[in-house]
Amino acid sequence: MKVIVDLCVVPLGVGVSVSSYIARCQKILEDAGLTINLHAYGTNIEGDFDQVFAAIKRCHEDIHAAGAPRISTTIRLGTRIDREQSMQDKIRSVEEKRSAT
Amino acid sequence: MKVIVDLCVVPLGVGVSVSSYIARCQKILEDAGLTINLHAYGTNIEGDFDQVFAAIKRCHEDIHAAGAPRISTTIRLGTRIDREQSMQDKIRSVEEKRSAT
Amino acid sequence: MKVIVDLCVVPLGVGVSVSSYIARCQKILEDAGLTINLHAYGTNIEGDFDQVFAAIKRCHEDIHAAGAPRISTTIRLGTRIDREQSMQDKIRSVEEKRSAT
Amino acid sequence: MKVIVDLCVVPLGVGVSVSSYIARCQKILEDAGLTINLHAYGTNIEGDFDQVFAAIKRCHEDIHAAGAPRISTTIRLGTRIDREQSMQDKIRSVEEKRSAT
Repeated sequence: MKVIVDLCVVPLGVGVSVSSYIARCQKILEDAGLTINLHAYGTNIEGDFDQVFAAIKRCHEDIHAAGAPRISTTIRLGTRIDREQSMQDKIRSVEEKRSAT
Repeated sequence: MKVIVDLCVVPLGVGVSVSSYIARCQKILEDAGLTINLHAYGTNIEGDFDQVFAAIKRCHEDIHAAGAPRISTTIRLGTRIDREQSMQDKIRSVEEKRSAT
Repeated sequence: MKVIVDLCVVPLGVGVSVSSYIARCQKILEDAGLTINLHAYGTNIEGDFDQVFAAIKRCHEDIHAAGAPRISTTIRLGTRIDREQSMQDKIRSVEEKRSAT
Repeated sequence: MKVIVDLCVVPLGVGVSVSSYIARCQKILEDAGLTINLHAYGTNIEGDFDQVFAAIKRCHEDIHAAGAPRISTTIRLGTRIDREQSMQDKIRSVEEKRSAT
């Protein structure tokens, strides 16, 4: 099952600066061969359900191993069976509607 | 890896009433042997990472099979390695702090 | 505008135990006269848009004043104009579908 | 209070294609003078708490007026008092950690 996911990982118990943990996550997601796009409050991910969630699990394991005792993550998960749609398609679709107004 | 999850599944393209789809999800989660608790804007789930996300995948497959062409789900995912904590522990912890004030 | 909200406040930079901050939030929401219901991964809130978000703002201000330098909150926000629906209605609707299967 | 928000608005009861509603939201947020950045599963917003949530309220009102009977929105809301941080700073911070590994 193809999914588009938006992932935001928040490590707790490691102070206020969490960007080094997010950078570790980026590497794990890329090493998993997933298409990703970092934004200011999360990361868009495109891929197969099982591969995406196996990578998210590795992110949690890695961040715990790197010293964070607790993690609170939020995930948006989109699936559709009516047609193929990439992350770029979603953005393009909104932008086309914008320019048409 | 033990997780506490909060799941909110939103089927699109099936009108405004989505409770029958949520009810299907509840059954899938219970049949998977997971501890769950329904609230007004989602479902708390406690279990093993792989079992929980396998069940969430089945929810998406089932809701698509039941006629929803598109689904937009949100998930909160908590893990911790410092100590064991159940869903009941989390609620009790806040309530104890409340009554102490 | 009437809203049903699910709120999950995560203070950063104060260690792994955050329940005392959540308890402060509960008090602020109740003092605002809002109908709330705590669950294991957030709090359901029912009320007027402006009142609910004014209270959420006070939660952030209070938690910062109590020592948390950073907060990462997630909010689910539901509105509908087709009919009145309370938090209890939402739960009952799913449970009726469940028992009908 | 300065906030960084990630907003994902999901109209229900209007079929599977929701991009025209998202485009309306973009316009409202821009007209409010907010700094925004569209991604594949939401929109980053930077601004003052009251201005951001007044604009989100207008998005809901507008989407209802445009025909959607129900809306289910998710919001990530970040505040910090330890230092100033823009959306660009957040992305740059992760990218610097990435290139340092």
